[in-house]
Order: sequence, then structure tokens, then C-alpha cells
Amino acid sequence: MVGYAFMGAVHSQGWRTAGRVFDLPLEPQLTAVCGRNRQAARAAADRLGWTSAETDWRDLIRRDDIDLVDICTPGESHAEIAIAALDAGKHVLCEKPLANTVAEAEAMVAATARNPGRIAMVGFNYRRTPALSLAQAMIGAGRLGTLRHIRLTYLQDWLVDPDFPLTWRLRRETAGSGALGDLGSHIVDLAQFLVGEPLAGVAALTTTFVPERPVLAGASAKLTASTGVDRGQVTVDDAALFTGRFPCGALASFEATRFAHGRKNALRLEVNGERGSLLFDLERLNELHFFDGTEPGAEAGFRRILVTEPDHPYLAAWWPPGHGLGYEHTFIHQARDLVQAVADGTQPSPSFTDGLQVQRVLAAVEESASKDSVYTPVSPSTDGEGRAS
Amino acid sequence: MVGYAFMGAVHSQGWRTAGRVFDLPLEPQLTAVCGRNRQAARAAADRLGWTSAETDWRDLIRRDDIDLVDICTPGESHAEIAIAALDAGKHVLCEKPLANTVAEAEAMVAATARNPGRIAMVGFNYRRTPALSLAQAMIGAGRLGTLRHIRLTYLQDWLVDPDFPLTWRLRRETAGSGALGDLGSHIVDLAQFLVGEPLAGVAALTTTFVPERPVLAGASAKLTASTGVDRGQVTVDDAALFTGRFPCGALASFEATRFAHGRKNALRLEVNGERGSLLFDLERLNELHFFDGTEPGAEAGFRRILVTEPDHPYLAAWWPPGHGLGYEHTFIHQARDLVQAVADGTQPSPSFTDGLQVQRVLAAVEESASKDSVYTPVSPSTDGEGRAS
Amino acid sequence: MVGYAFMGAVHSQGWRTAGRVFDLPLEPQLTAVCGRNRQAARAAADRLGWTSAETDWRDLIRRDDIDLVDICTPGESHAEIAIAALDAGKHVLCEKPLANTVAEAEAMVAATARNPGRIAMVGFNYRRTPALSLAQAMIGAGRLGTLRHIRLTYLQDWLVDPDFPLTWRLRRETAGSGALGDLGSHIVDLAQFLVGEPLAGVAALTTTFVPERPVLAGASAKLTASTGVDRGQVTVDDAALFTGRFPCGALASFEATRFAHGRKNALRLEVNGERGSLLFDLERLNELHFFDGTEPGAEAGFRRILVTEPDHPYLAAWWPPGHGLGYEHTFIHQARDLVQAVADGTQPSPSFTDGLQVQRVLAAVEESASKDSVYTPVSPSTDGEGRAS
Amino acid sequence: MVGYAFMGAVHSQGWRTAGRVFDLPLEPQLTAVCGRNRQAARAAADRLGWTSAETDWRDLIRRDDIDLVDICTPGESHAEIAIAALDAGKHVLCEKPLANTVAEAEAMVAATARNPGRIAMVGFNYRRTPALSLAQAMIGAGRLGTLRHIRLTYLQDWLVDPDFPLTWRLRRETAGSGALGDLGSHIVDLAQFLVGEPLAGVAALTTTFVPERPVLAGASAKLTASTGVDRGQVTVDDAALFTGRFPCGALASFEATRFAHGRKNALRLEVNGERGSLLFDLERLNELHFFDGTEPGAEAGFRRILVTEPDHPYLAAWWPPGHGLGYEHTFIHQARDLVQAVADGTQPSPSFTDGLQVQRVLAAVEESASKDSVYTPVSPSTDGEGRAS
Repeated sequence: MVGYAFMGAVHSQGWRTAGRVFDLPLEPQLTAVCGRNRQAARAAADRLGWTSAETDWRDLIRRDDIDLVDICTPGESHAEIAIAALDAGKHVLCEKPLANTVAEAEAMVAATARNPGRIAMVGFNYRRTPALSLAQAMIGAGRLGTLRHIRLTYLQDWLVDPDFPLTWRLRRETAGSGALGDLGSHIVDLAQFLVGEPLAGVAALTTTFVPERPVLAGASAKLTASTGVDRGQVTVDDAALFTGRFPCGALASFEATRFAHGRKNALRLEVNGERGSLLFDLERLNELHFFDGTEPGAEAGFRRILVTEPDHPYLAAWWPPGHGLGYEHTFIHQARDLVQAVADGTQPSPSFTDGLQVQRVLAAVEESASKDSVYTPVSPSTDGEGRAS
Repeated sequence: MVGYAFMGAVHSQGWRTAGRVFDLPLEPQLTAVCGRNRQAARAAADRLGWTSAETDWRDLIRRDDIDLVDICTPGESHAEIAIAALDAGKHVLCEKPLANTVAEAEAMVAATARNPGRIAMVGFNYRRTPALSLAQAMIGAGRLGTLRHIRLTYLQDWLVDPDFPLTWRLRRETAGSGALGDLGSHIVDLAQFLVGEPLAGVAALTTTFVPERPVLAGASAKLTASTGVDRGQVTVDDAALFTGRFPCGALASFEATRFAHGRKNALRLEVNGERGSLLFDLERLNELHFFDGTEPGAEAGFRRILVTEPDHPYLAAWWPPGHGLGYEHTFIHQARDLVQAVADGTQPSPSFTDGLQVQRVLAAVEESASKDSVYTPVSPSTDGEGRAS
Repeated sequence: MVGYAFMGAVHSQGWRTAGRVFDLPLEPQLTAVCGRNRQAARAAADRLGWTSAETDWRDLIRRDDIDLVDICTPGESHAEIAIAALDAGKHVLCEKPLANTVAEAEAMVAATARNPGRIAMVGFNYRRTPALSLAQAMIGAGRLGTLRHIRLTYLQDWLVDPDFPLTWRLRRETAGSGALGDLGSHIVDLAQFLVGEPLAGVAALTTTFVPERPVLAGASAKLTASTGVDRGQVTVDDAALFTGRFPCGALASFEATRFAHGRKNALRLEVNGERGSLLFDLERLNELHFFDGTEPGAEAGFRRILVTEPDHPYLAAWWPPGHGLGYEHTFIHQARDLVQAVADGTQPSPSFTDGLQVQRVLAAVEESASKDSVYTPVSPSTDGEGRAS
Repeated sequence: MVGYAFMGAVHSQGWRTAGRVFDLPLEPQLTAVCGRNRQAARAAADRLGWTSAETDWRDLIRRDDIDLVDICTPGESHAEIAIAALDAGKHVLCEKPLANTVAEAEAMVAATARNPGRIAMVGFNYRRTPALSLAQAMIGAGRLGTLRHIRLTYLQDWLVDPDFPLTWRLRRETAGSGALGDLGSHIVDLAQFLVGEPLAGVAALTTTFVPERPVLAGASAKLTASTGVDRGQVTVDDAALFTGRFPCGALASFEATRFAHGRKNALRLEVNGERGSLLFDLERLNELHFFDGTEPGAEAGFRRILVTEPDHPYLAAWWPPGHGLGYEHTFIHQARDLVQAVADGTQPSPSFTDGLQVQRVLAAVEESASKDSVYTPVSPSTDGEGRAS
């Protein structure tokens, strides 16, 4: 695993736990964690349960006792590490968004194409929230009929304070984009996952509410609000709003922001179809709300399905009904499905092609935003052999 | 009152009840109701509590015993009736949207300008939901600080069935537009009411999911789904999505649709500011949710204010705390405030200029939608003397 | 109508509105309102829409132009007025609880028995909340199967402040009991209404948290917290908790209090049966939640029925789906059903016998509370001819 | 660890994870798991991450490499194992309820008294839900003032089907009691934890809705509804309802049942005090609702605190705000606090004395239920030196 901050910690939890809960065909070994600072990497290895520590990801890739590389670094290094790992014969799990640019993402997809035996997955973990897996299955089974609308918001509030410092997430060169790439990528992926096809085009509007923020004294400075006098430029969006169309005719709306006061991790979505509707709220992730439009009007209503039954995706391995799961379980499920895919030799979803498709949408959003919101088509990604993903 | 269908019934309830609950300086008399069919108008008068019935609104306007004309007809006739009534020296309450076109709305504003002693109000009744009156007061008092976001949806589902017939609301010549004018006008008005300034511009996307629908045998045919073979063209939008900017820098998103299965009258809004946030849902109209960002993090949270306390807008005249109000109460409050304005000789809000401003936004939405969603500025309305409303 | 305070105001709204919304076989005339103070009664008549005012209820009963007497006074005078009215050949609507004692209630039932042509109804208005009418219909149709549990709470908080003054509601001689009679009577009635049979017995615990409160200077003093030095004895309960059994085997739990901080009018109930469950919350009175236990486990969930469809009880006469009703609508429905019953010459429910049955439960609660909570049977009421109600 | 079924699995998750998330002074080693069937115990050890397996808990206790014994068996064996373990010099974690009888629980407390250096804890894990830890801290800090009410329900529905088989949980000799001990013990413990003192007395009513159920062919038979012809007696309660008093004057109500259709694991509680109120629902365990009665009435409301902030109990070690935890985290927190207590040599809470106190309440409930619900005092437990716990 490369990187051991927040994402590294939760990925570790996934790797450590998957085999304790699910019957896995292969047992994951937490062989080595990698970080630039030797002492910190060593401490992280001890804390998170990894056997060894490395300071250069190239050394990690060279090791024979490593079959899979899990990339938990900021977006700027995803392409380089993932491509090198694939070309070195490793399977790869890469955190989202897949890359900072479409070009990088295309190069990553090309690397998967020339290494067909290698498994590559992008970490859109929310697909593996049981409620969203169930939602996708219900839509796939036609329970909603023809889709009309999907609306998704992903709201956070950690930039509300104008004195919150200028971190790597607020600079284009490290993060690629702002709320768009960090939060927007998740809801774009979920929209395409649930509707079952890529977005056709988007019309977008973005803004940066606070254009300058205090510069941190050092890279390791604590990320809390400060009163530092030196201010640097925020070079990414603070919020992105966009509408879109799907080829099937459904309309989509998206909003990603870090300025929604009181909203901590509010990923909400609603899908409306000719036969019914579905609602989901990440802050209550054990619930899926379903309106069955085929019921008689006098008894119809949005039904709160507590997604903790053994018949629900992933749940047979967990606790009895009503004993809810949390955020990290999506990573345990991700680890489980990836291990299964490696054992089966089948490409899991979301693939790098799926990740590229999200990247194309993000690029179209930025292009539309820069051109007075004009509707901007998104070209569907194709895999190495020209097939749509 | 001209028209006695759904809107006429609820307006009547407003006129009949306002003086029984509030201390009014003038007592409203329900003098005459007007409709083309004499028998039906007479029956409506008896049912709804009006003393007499007329069959031509021109006769109504000619009557000396009538001081105020309440227009509850489809949008196509608003301008003609309202202008004639104002020029005949009557006060006017006109249902929303003010008109079917900007030109009509401008003519209506001009009529108010040349009849300065006459009171004119447009029926955006939701402003007078106590929770939204409170929301506006809190924003006005700076409880949210600088506004960053406002997002509003107004979702219904009565067109989900493709065999629902072609009513007047589905034809441009009668309704002006579809979900946009009917539902979108409400949320545009509320956004401008809450933010306290007109929208600067919009980027929009509209669609008509079901382009042809069964033609009703007769004008009075019952509006239920049928299997009629004759189909006519739907000439308005089924759904409208748009984003926008306010001069203060806040971003707005809007969605109006009649295809959200399971959503009956779901007007929802959220406002995020630098110091806090507010949420509202018309299906639970006695509640306003407030996040106070100045509270310590460990105890902060969205607070469900049950807007039924005597200190809340309009509530001192109603029932004890916790005994909720319903939809029609917004019309009782509208009647109360309009009677007060007539007595005081002051122009109430929302004025015809406010209604024109909404109309300009709707026009900009349609223009943007017809031009590939390009961002389209909205010119602020000015009153007869060139002042911004 | 006798009494014109809060209850009188909302009853007036019921009488004035019922015929404007529903097709009634008889048109209610608001003939006279009665109160001890002539000036206040006259003002109330004007405000609430009554033609004349009386100062002695005996005069009211003597009038030939009055067919029905609506009693909105404190419980202490219910029996005397109701019996006199019935014996004078009037129909009667009596506010709940029916009386302050079982003996009074029995005398009232006896009065109905000797005046079989007269219609008598007790004002348990919440039965006519559309969601609860629907709940009763669903249970009656067997949608829940054999009932196992019903739990009801009715929570308010207006006595939290120990300096809230000693009003008539806090004295046994005027109010009969405290939270028990005022709030508990509603939930006892609803439990019996929904389960469809009288409670068999109860085990109860009551308390008075604040035994002394400031005495009001005058009867008309405003009911707000004060710092008055004179304190008098609170002679009723502040809270009552009781459990009970129904003959069918279902268990019941009840809690009534005026000390639940933040709960303004929180009447909540849940019914669990072998085939499903129902939930209701008066603070969201347009909703009924239904769990259909016959659905497959993976899709089952509590369904939020928005009780605003034309197929729902009372709703065909009201607004389109999603346009909610409020507290006072239960009184409009009560007026409508009572007028219908008078026209039909049939006894409506809840009858005085139903009211007596509630009174017997309240008495059993007090008896149990006085005897260390011992389980105390409730004798089912019988009507004048010995039949169970 | 003795036992490796549901409870064993979730305890293992706690032991494995605590040191990966929290800085622990000692590192837990998962040394041995114990079960009667050697093969099954071995498989469980492999699956759950334990180094070795034993088939007799006496062997486990004899091992020198074991410092702490975690008892996850049915209640009938708790006392024997725990006492032996303590007397053998081991620390003990014992699942709830502490024992099947008061006598057993007293013997267990005596064993802790004679082994003062040993740490003993009873597994009322819900105390360590962050929202409930926060609730307790807020009450302790006086945020609610004098307490008036606490009401708790713990509702499940897995016995709704009368053909659900007769498992060990439905027999008094193995389970001690039914819903009372299994669910009721949790809410009794939480009530005493939150109020901060033991219950003074209770009045109770219990029932067994389905007195006979199909007998399982073998001990290992799958626990699903069957149509087996042989039926055996259910010897425990299906539901228990009770009210109670705290020495401070607060009233309590409790309901535990396995017949609440649609309720899967619905532990809900509300506390009302003179200055405010708190609400909690285990199905949404990342939320605590707080009504601050000191706020001005016009802005007061129940505040939904998302208990995911670094300032909240246990949360600094977890994910960023808004990324929720699940059911098993309460066991991770339990493991963490117990390891800390062992390192510090201090007795953690809930102690065996706390567990005995719950047992005394359960016994008083059963006594009251057997004596027509008469109010039955509960003697407070004292520790080995006569001090109240």
C-alpha cells in the first residue's frame, strides 16, 4: 500500500477484516506499506498491521512478495505508480478519482490493456455500500422502469472558515480539481453505476468562494484554521453544480461543495423512474427508501428498507438484522470483491475504464464551466479494444 | 373572484377565514364569483360562500360594490383581467405565475404604475408559510451570514402515466410553460425572497418526456388517466433543471418536475451561509431546520424548529404550540396581509414587479434551454419609476 | 356553543368550514355562543362568526332556534350542561374528556338512553385525523392480523417551568385530573378505537413533579410564567404512565405528561400485529407509516404513506395530493360527521358510551396508582340496554 | 474467549481492531478460542483470528499465556466460568446479562471482591456507542437539569412467526428470561447509566404470546421457521413492559419485545429534564438529538447532532466528520477501555456490581409481573465493601 493517511488507514481496515468476515479464496497479506518518511512509514506499518515499510514506491513494486499494489496517495501520483505497478505485473487498486487529467487516465487504461492478466480497480467505494448495491440491483431488475431523473448532492462544510489553510486539496497541481474531483467524482460514478450507462453531456457552473487562504508553515503542519498572514491562491473550485443528460433520456443534476454549513459528508441521491423511485443518504447508510409506484395509491409510500437483512448484498456475512454497518465496511467489501476477482481472474468493476469515464465527465464539467455553462458532450470511454465499458 | 376551481376554493377559504382568526382593519366581503358557466358559477358561489355569481369578468369589474378582484384563472387571461381591473380602480390579487410572457407581465406592472393608489399582489402563497417567513427573517437578520448556496426542488408525479390526458396545463397557449411556470415559478420566487435579491443569470436544461398525450373528449372531461386513442402534442416542458448565480455570489440550483414518482408536492429547499444553514420541506410545512454554525462543534446539529410558537410569524393568532397548520393557511395569511395592505395603502410583497422578475427568470431559463444551456443573464425588473424592486 | 376559548375557536372553525368543503345534508347555522361575560361573549360571537351571544347556558338550551349544543367548557360543567341539553331535546357535542368522574359520565350516558332520538358525540377529534381513520380501517380490514402491541405517548412541556401559574387545569375540582384526563384520555380513546375493543385492565403510576405553583391574581390573568409569591397546591397529576391488557391479548403502554421538554403536542403511537405494524406522530399528522409484514424481507420496510390522496378518508373533498391538512381539520371532519349523523338519525362514534369507557379507564388508572400500581380491571361500559358499546 | 457464535465474532472484531485504531498501553493477543466441538472451534479460531482452540473452558483458564477470559456463552454458564476465571487470577469480560439469577450474579460479585486485583466487566456494549457516551456526559454536566422522564423501548420482531422454532433463548433454564433478559437488560442498564443511579422500583407486566413452538431436530439445526410437528413449551416471556421510579424522582418506562413487526433492533430512548431533552435510536446510532430548553422559544428545536466529530467520545481515533460508525464499533470501544483498565489497574464500568444491579431489576420485574404488577422495590447493589456502585 502506498500512502498511510486517512485513506491508508481505512484501506488497511478493509484488508485486515475482509477475510475474517467473508470466505475468501485467497488470504490477503499486509506485506508492506510505503511512505517517504521512514520513521512515519514504520510507525504506520506497526499501527495498521503491515509487516514491513518502504520509502520509495519503486522499491515496493520491485518486491517479489507483493502481488497487488494499493494506491492511497493524492491524485497527482496515481498514473505513474499505477502504470509502473501494472507493467511490473502487479494487480492494482487505485484510490479515486483515477487521475488528475483525462490524459493520465487514458494512459492508465492503456496500461491495463497491455497487461490483460492484471486486475485493476478504482476505489469508488460507495458502490459497495449495501444499500447502493441493492439500489443498483433493483434498477437493473427493472423495478423503477424507464428512468426519468437522478439527482445527487455531495455536501461537506470543512472550507466554510476562510482561514482554513491552503492544503494540497486546494491546489490544482496536486488535487486536479476541488470539490469537483474529490466529491463530484463519487456522485458522477454513482450516477453512471445506477443508471447503467455513461453521461451524454453536462452543463456546469463552478466557483471559488474564498480565492486566497493562509499558507501552511510546513508540509506537516496541522490542518486546522489559523490566522497565518501569508496567503496563497486557491486554484481549484470550492463548489461545482451541473446538470446532464443520459442517452436513455434521463436528466441528472449534481452538486458538490465544501461550503454547505452543517453538512459533514452528505451524499444524497434520488432516482425517479416510470414505475418507482429510490432515495439514499450516506449519513444514514443502512437505509434505502423505495417508492413502489405499482402499489395502490391509498397505501403507497416511500418505504424505508433497513438494509441489514441476510438477503441484502454483503449482509449474510455480517450481524443480525438491524445491527448496522458503518463507513469502513464499504472498504471491507471492496477488498473482498477485489480478492475474489484476483482469484477468478476476472476484471472487477469499477474498472480503470469506469474511472476514465468519470474523468471525462469531470473534464467536460470544467470545459462547460469555462464556456459559460454551455452543454458539453462527454465521449464514452472505450476499453483497449474499442468496446464501450 | 374570477375562477372557482382548486385555486378558487382555497382562495375562498382564505377570504372567509382571515377575519375569524386575525384582527383585520377591514372585513372582507365575498361579494361575487365569476365563471363562464352560469349554473356552475352559481353552485360555486353557494358552496364557497360568495353572495353572487357573474359569467363575464368585465361585469364583475364594472360593479361598484367590488373593491378587489382576485384572479384564479389559468395564466393566459391574467394580464387582460388584471390590467382592466386596475384601470377600473380595483385592487388586484393575481394567481402565480403573474403571466404567460414577460411582455404581459410588463404590461401588468405598467398598469400598477399608472394606478399608484391601487394595491396589487401576486399569489406566491408559499412565502407566507410560517416556516418560510421565519427563514426569511432569520436570513435577513444575518443568522446565516454571507450566503453561499441555495438549492430548491419542487417535485410532483402526476404526469408519470403516459396516458394521463392533455389538459390545459400541457399546452403553451394556455399555461405559458409546464413544470417551469407551474412549479419552477414558486421556487424562483422563494429563492429571490430568501436571498433578498434577483437572480443574475441561469443555465438551464428542459425536457418533455412524453411528447403526445390522449386528447380529452370535452373541456369538462374528468382529468384522469384514460386510454383515448386520439393523441395531441404536449407543447410545454415536463421538467426543468437550472443553475444560477446571485449578485452576492451565492450559487443556486433548481429542479421542477412532474415525473418524480412518489413525490406529491415536494417543495424542498436548503440555504447554506457562512454562519449557518436552513432546510425546509413543504410536506412537513410546520418545521424549519436550522444549523447554527456558531455553536461548539460537539453540540452543533440541524435543529428541527416546530414553527408553531406564538413568537413565530402568524402563529400568535392560531392554536397552541405543536398544533400544526396546513396548506390552506398560507392563503389565509395572504388574505390577511393583503387586507392589511389595502387598509394601510401600502404595496405588499410579492408585488407585480416581483412577479415580473420571476417571469424574466422563466424566460431566461427557456432561452438558455434553447441555446444549449448557455448561461443567460436576467435583467432585474424595475418599477414604473426605474427603481429596482 | 358554550365556551369560546381555544376549543371554542377551533370548534367554530369546524362549524363554519364543514359545509364549504363537504356536501352536507344540513347546513350548520352558528346561532349563538355562550359565556359568562356578556361583552366577551359578544366579541367572541363577532370574531368567530356566531349570530348571537348568551351569558347563561340555560338560556341557550331554552331557545327554539337551536338544535344542537356544542360544549367547550372545562370538564366540571360537562355533565350538567349535556344532560340538560339532551333532556331539552337538543343534540349534543361534548368536548373530551366526557366528564370529571365516572358517575357524571354514567349520568350522561343515561341521559342519552332516555333521549334515543337525540344525537350525542364526545369530541375525541383525533379519531378524525385522516391518517388515524385510515389506520383504523386498515386494522379493521385485517392488514395487521392479530394485534400484539400498541404503545402511545402524548407528551407536552408547558409545565416544565415551576413558576408556571396554577390554572384551572391544575386543580382536581375543575379539571378532574391532570395530564391523565387532558392527554391520557385522548390516547386511551385512540387505543380502544384502533384495537376495536375496551381495555381489560391497567397498572399505573402517576406523579406530581411540582406540587405548588404561583396563584394567579385574577381568573383572567395571562397564563405565562410569573414570579408570584403566593403559591397554591397542584391537586392533579403532572404525568401518568400505565400499561394495560386488551381482551384480545394485545399489550398496551401509555404515557401522558406535560414535562417532556421540547415536546409540544407529541401524540405518537405504534401498533404491532402478526402481519404488520403502523406508526403515527401527530406532529406530522399527514403521514401514516405502515410495515407490511407480508412483503419479501429484502424489500420490506416502514412505508411513509402521505395521507393526502383522494382515496384516503375525508381527502376527496380537500386539496390535491401532497397539500397537507392541519390540526383544525379534525374538527371540520367532526362537524361534518356529526351533521351527517343528525341528518341520518344515527348515533355517531365516539358516543357518550365511548366517552364513559375512557372515563372508566381513567378511574382505573387512578385506582391502580393509589394502590401501588396493582393491576386494576376496567369494566366495559354498556349502553342503556346492556349492550357493550 | 469462550463461545464463537454471533457474540464471539463481534468480540473478536473488537479485540483485533482496538489496537489498530487507538493507542493502547497493552497489545491484545488473540490467544485461544474455546468451544465444545473441536473441529468447529478450530475453524472459528482460523476464521476469527485466534491462535489456538480449546474444547473445555477449564483448560483455557489453566493456561499461563492467558490473562483475560472473554465469556460469550449463553447466560447459564456465565457464573461458573467467570468465578473460576477470576479465582484463577484472570481478568474477565462477561457478556450481558451478567447471569440468569440474582444469586449467580451475587456470587460473581463476591468473586470480584475476593480478587481485587482482577478486572471484571460486563458487556453492556451500548454504553460505548459514542452518541450514548455523549448523552451520559451531557446529563452528567447538568445540561438537562433535574431529570423528569426516561423512556426506553427495545423492539425486535424475530418471533412474530409462530412457527419459529424453540431455541435456547426461549427456555428459562438456558436463557434465564426472554425479551426481558435479552433486550430489557440493555435498556435497564442504559437507564441507570444515563440517570446515574439505580432504579428504586418497578411495576411490570409480561406475556408469552406464543406458548408452544416447534422443537428443533438437533442442536445444530438452522434457526428458521419450520413446520415441525413436535412442539415444546416456551418458558420465558415474549414481551415485558414496566414502569419505574428513580430515587431522584424521575419516572421511567420500559418495553422489550420480540413481536414488534418491522422493528429489527430498535433500541430507542428519550430523556426529559428540566433544562432539556435527549433522544437516541440505535437504528441511527451516529445521531443524538438534543433539545436545549435554554434557547429562545422561537429558535428552539431538537438538534440532530451527528456524533462523528473529533470532540465526541472515541471519535478522534476514527474517520473524518460524517463518516459513520456501525454496531461493532461499540465492541471495539469496549475492548479499548478494558485494555486501558487492565493497564491502569482500575475497575472499569459497567462492573459486575452494575451487572448485578441490572439483575436485581430483572428479578423485581418478574416478581411484580407475578404479583399483578404491584410496585416492587429494587434493593441497590453494594460492592464488596458495602458501598453503592
